[in-house]
Amino acid sequence: MNDIRTGVIGLGAMGAPMARHLASHGFLAGVWNRTTIKADTLAAELGVMRADSPAELAGQCNILLTCVSADKDLESVIAQVLAGLKHGDVVIDTSTVSPVLTKHLAERLERIAVGFIDAPVSGGVEGAVNGRLSVMAGGDFATFSRVLPVLESFSSSVTHMGPVGSGQATKAVNQVIVAGLAEAVCEALALSEKLNLPSERLLSVLTAGAADSWFLRHRGQSVLENRFETGFKLSLLLKDLKIIQSLARNLNINLNTVDAAINDYEKLVTAGDGNNDISGLIRRKRAQMSVADEE
Amino acid sequence: MNDIRTGVIGLGAMGAPMARHLASHGFLAGVWNRTTIKADTLAAELGVMRADSPAELAGQCNILLTCVSADKDLESVIAQVLAGLKHGDVVIDTSTVSPVLTKHLAERLERIAVGFIDAPVSGGVEGAVNGRLSVMAGGDFATFSRVLPVLESFSSSVTHMGPVGSGQATKAVNQVIVAGLAEAVCEALALSEKLNLPSERLLSVLTAGAADSWFLRHRGQSVLENRFETGFKLSLLLKDLKIIQSLARNLNINLNTVDAAINDYEKLVTAGDGNNDISGLIRRKRAQMSVADEE
Repeated sequence: MNDIRTGVIGLGAMGAPMARHLASHGFLAGVWNRTTIKADTLAAELGVMRADSPAELAGQCNILLTCVSADKDLESVIAQVLAGLKHGDVVIDTSTVSPVLTKHLAERLERIAVGFIDAPVSGGVEGAVNGRLSVMAGGDFATFSRVLPVLESFSSSVTHMGPVGSGQATKAVNQVIVAGLAEAVCEALALSEKLNLPSERLLSVLTAGAADSWFLRHRGQSVLENRFETGFKLSLLLKDLKIIQSLARNLNINLNTVDAAINDYEKLVTAGDGNNDISGLIRRKRAQMSVADEE
Repeated sequence: MNDIRTGVIGLGAMGAPMARHLASHGFLAGVWNRTTIKADTLAAELGVMRADSPAELAGQCNILLTCVSADKDLESVIAQVLAGLKHGDVVIDTSTVSPVLTKHLAERLERIAVGFIDAPVSGGVEGAVNGRLSVMAGGDFATFSRVLPVLESFSSSVTHMGPVGSGQATKAVNQVIVAGLAEAVCEALALSEKLNLPSERLLSVLTAGAADSWFLRHRGQSVLENRFETGFKLSLLLKDLKIIQSLARNLNINLNTVDAAINDYEKLVTAGDGNNDISGLIRRKRAQMSVADEE
């Protein structure tokens, strides 16, 4: 693929910075977004086309990169894009969606000779802005190799995990750990508050040993200071966990950590805290500690 | 305390290497162990006294360091040592026991003008052998300062966390996280096996981002290779978690992560896997995945 012309669909907190990195590498041809004003603004900033529809964008590009929030958004976007796709084009989906949907869409695109790579990312908004995302990719290796420069333009690490769906499967495994780390650290830090332990010394002791984790290092201090504004919205982790729960049901397996985390985040979303960083989980842990026989 | 003469009580997998570090710093006067042969062997190796009883050891030392497994062992040892303790002596307990027992023993010793420092450690057998333990200490600061050289002889980090019981309270917080990390990582890795993800690439992707933790870095590979021999016996983590559960009941709070982990480790101990490293938890996670409607 000598001439890379990428169209980006979905210009949210992740998609917009990814589009900027594509533009700075000369890979971006145009953008489309459900809310048109966002697309207008970014197209003007980057000097690229703002397409009137996903299909029009597809007509002008040979790679389409999607970055949306949920399964239904991705299904809708792919349905709208089909009319414009051409033989040999490749769709890269960077959203976190169900591996089942991923395989279904890949098959649908294969029938019209369009390639598909699932490429969910980890590293958050900060990683997207800094071009330091970690990409977990699934799909045909030749297709993956063709679009690798596109993925590398916004990433510090790109790993091919296997056939279509392997990227989403890897992201699912990643999110099980992320959710479990948050549960463990928030429960432990809420306990430390009950025990009146000095927070600064506590964090240095804990990160020095077997209790160390990304979450403790990056969120320990802010959690104990009741700051939950930065990072990864807990409503989005809840969405990811529900995808994983559904995957687990299809496999007929139990994921206890996931079930427990869903229960906690659902209560936080109901309480209006869905826009908090996932470390806002400590509020629920504290609530459980003040009324032990609540449920 | 110009002349430090320490006696070590409890020469197990942790106590024996700690005694060696004390000896190499010239701080060790003698040892005692419930199983006499262990004490005989180590006393001969280090050229120190093997006491006939805890009280005799106390009579020859000004610092007593205890390293035993459970609350009842510590209570028994302290009861046996009382007759030999002298005004101004200090007892350092490096075991992981209940903060409630710790405070009770400290009060009992204070009545006979003997100091007490709770100093549980983290870092495992490897840390004890290498003199790289992390010590979480509680107690009067002047007493702590007097015995600091003893603690530093086997540690890379010694932190004074507050009054008596603060060391045990910190260890409890540490173990909540350790247990939660193991739950999250083992559940996620068992899922990755179900999804047939390539293990080597998976571990490098996961440790590169927000799923990173001590447990994943140090146990991820061995878990996926079914090796559970090194590290921290799960029967001992179960003991620690039961102490924490009892602490939580006294505080009238829920610790869901702890309850879930206790349930898992009890089943593993019943199945005869108590001597496995805590990463042996993946066996239980796999079992839950092969029979989802088991319970």
